[in-house]
Amino acid sequence: MHTLWDERYALRTDNMGSSAIRELLKLTSQSDVISFAGGMPAPEVFPIEEFKEACDVVLSEMGDRALQYGTTEGYQPLRELIASNAAKYGIQISADNVLITSGSQQALDLLGRIFINRGDRVLVESPTYLGAIQAWNAYGVKYVTIPSDKDGMVTDMLESRLRTGIKFIYVLPNFQNPTGVTLSRERRKTLVEMADAYGVPIVEDDPYGQLRFEGEHQTPVVVIDDEMRAKEVPIYSGNVIYTSTFSKILAPGLRLAWVVAPPEVITKLVQAKQGCDLHTSTFNQYIAYELAKSPWMKTHIQLIRKVYTERRNTMIHALEVNMPENVHWTHPKGGLFLWVTLPKSLDTSRIFNEAVAEKVAFVPGVPFHPLGGGENTMRLNFSNSKPEMIDEGIKRLANVIKKNL
Amino acid sequence: MHTLWDERYALRTDNMGSSAIRELLKLTSQSDVISFAGGMPAPEVFPIEEFKEACDVVLSEMGDRALQYGTTEGYQPLRELIASNAAKYGIQISADNVLITSGSQQALDLLGRIFINRGDRVLVESPTYLGAIQAWNAYGVKYVTIPSDKDGMVTDMLESRLRTGIKFIYVLPNFQNPTGVTLSRERRKTLVEMADAYGVPIVEDDPYGQLRFEGEHQTPVVVIDDEMRAKEVPIYSGNVIYTSTFSKILAPGLRLAWVVAPPEVITKLVQAKQGCDLHTSTFNQYIAYELAKSPWMKTHIQLIRKVYTERRNTMIHALEVNMPENVHWTHPKGGLFLWVTLPKSLDTSRIFNEAVAEKVAFVPGVPFHPLGGGENTMRLNFSNSKPEMIDEGIKRLANVIKKNL
Repeated sequence: MHTLWDERYALRTDNMGSSAIRELLKLTSQSDVISFAGGMPAPEVFPIEEFKEACDVVLSEMGDRALQYGTTEGYQPLRELIASNAAKYGIQISADNVLITSGSQQALDLLGRIFINRGDRVLVESPTYLGAIQAWNAYGVKYVTIPSDKDGMVTDMLESRLRTGIKFIYVLPNFQNPTGVTLSRERRKTLVEMADAYGVPIVEDDPYGQLRFEGEHQTPVVVIDDEMRAKEVPIYSGNVIYTSTFSKILAPGLRLAWVVAPPEVITKLVQAKQGCDLHTSTFNQYIAYELAKSPWMKTHIQLIRKVYTERRNTMIHALEVNMPENVHWTHPKGGLFLWVTLPKSLDTSRIFNEAVAEKVAFVPGVPFHPLGGGENTMRLNFSNSKPEMIDEGIKRLANVIKKNL
Repeated sequence: MHTLWDERYALRTDNMGSSAIRELLKLTSQSDVISFAGGMPAPEVFPIEEFKEACDVVLSEMGDRALQYGTTEGYQPLRELIASNAAKYGIQISADNVLITSGSQQALDLLGRIFINRGDRVLVESPTYLGAIQAWNAYGVKYVTIPSDKDGMVTDMLESRLRTGIKFIYVLPNFQNPTGVTLSRERRKTLVEMADAYGVPIVEDDPYGQLRFEGEHQTPVVVIDDEMRAKEVPIYSGNVIYTSTFSKILAPGLRLAWVVAPPEVITKLVQAKQGCDLHTSTFNQYIAYELAKSPWMKTHIQLIRKVYTERRNTMIHALEVNMPENVHWTHPKGGLFLWVTLPKSLDTSRIFNEAVAEKVAFVPGVPFHPLGGGENTMRLNFSNSKPEMIDEGIKRLANVIKKNL
């Protein structure tokens, strides 16, 4: 049957699927497996009562509009709220700089759609976010990679890459997925200057920026870019396209994110989005607006930080206690993930099945490397397991690793 | 500023935008304009109280799951409900035949993504649905058109088109957008047989099928195709891809639709969708499931039919009373639209501004014709205006037309 449709109708594939990962994650959904494999928020912090109130207000007071078709750009008060919140982080933007998307994944897809012609080269960290790789593979991208260390992308190596002809640079500067590392202030500055010098735009993906557990907030790349420029109008028109999401601070089930970009880029994204899904759920945008405009939001984000800080601490502690020598891990100051490096002799894709048999799961590092590599690495998620489960899961994982040493 | 980004970064355009229509629709959103231009349901029939109850049940009983990430395929109970509802219309499918999408627009986009290689030929009625044209333009489609009359697509002319090499046939058999006409039983059969003979798949777009005001339900194309085949398993694996939506029977603000297709096509669509937006809002799927599984749903659809029947009757009556000779219109037996043809000497794009100045709006017919034509035609929506407004709006429109004769 498969071959029938594939052959008869020449269905396109374009490396669209990362089916291996999908199948792998299905394995980990058995209820007795302690899974560090996904990237899900803790359901314990979902603000269910506040959601109920917001639904009630939205439906009672503006149900006829909240359930109707909306504009492709997004719900205007939500765009304005996002613009005014951005001012707190030092960037002057207007609602015209903001597009509401159906999750960050759609933001990445739309950027691929307007930027990437088959064969175009995009510069990414290696390892980098799997969803970006998947989104852009569909457009025939060629990846150029740059390594990262504990301070993020190694910007010393940026110029040599940029000289090869790059369409845009993709960077996840805060608590990167998958490594958990944060790009240092100095490197952010180098990145912005170098991108500007070569006339290459930067896509700054920041899903976790507000989930910092310790240390000082780092100025977003888009702000550094903005500061560099002489401004006449309070509308951002620089070199960086910034994206963030409500998935980690409210709930991923809403599928709500946003892009901040120069207005002419927003216009192109809007045209592309119109063909993709007309607009993002009006109802969900109204609900998110009700929640996000409330002073309660600040307290809520503090609660998430507190819960995730405990889980990260528990995981780091469990790693220190249980892991054999020559196993190393990152120390993320925020976000949802940390990154483990095993001795070179071990292949995490090969020990995966054994780990699942022992009822613990992770994501092997290879798929995060668009040009290959990372066989001895793995990503661990700490946000979605309670501390006692983290403790037990890391013990199981350490045992599997020890057996394979 | 525009030229800066467009030129420096060679942003893709690919005829993505139908910006003219967008700008046009903005004109019609002034509150004193009686607009027959959009395609919006009547907000008066939005089941706001039922939505409130559904939100309460979903959040109280399964909030932790409804707000979390979900699978790309969609919420399993909703997929099963759609499969079992399909059985009522005579088609044996399982949940594996169903993909939940972010509105029908996404279904069209994903189909373009997996089927259309640049230069592929797709057969559409002319006029046809604007959103489909827009979705597929992004993939470099070439359109082949076939005319329609009061019984829908003129299938006598199908074979000559199919012999030119067609990737798939797109058809909107019930109360077509924009014309409102319905494909006859006999022509449905011819379509299915011809498509099968030439090995060309059919995309059946059915957003309005349940909104029939009079006459007998016509068997869906997918069912006719299914009946033609010897079946061993209760999983559809024929030649038709069917899509429908909750936008017209619940609320468009949810952005919820579905595709029914052979499982191997669903697999490809799932891979494509994963890169586009990961999955459709879990929360909205849970709410739609709560509403759609209730026996109340049947009564609700009857209510919508009743309201729209009155509005269609009002519009037809007003056209009969007010329009000059040589103006003709279709008599849709369901749906949201009717189609008006003026004398050849008139150009609806040219009288549009005059109509808006007289505080009435429509959509000129040209953009619905992918290869041009239809200068003397227009689409009128009757679902989104109350009867007294329809009466007044048609009077105004008739006056504008008379002045231009």
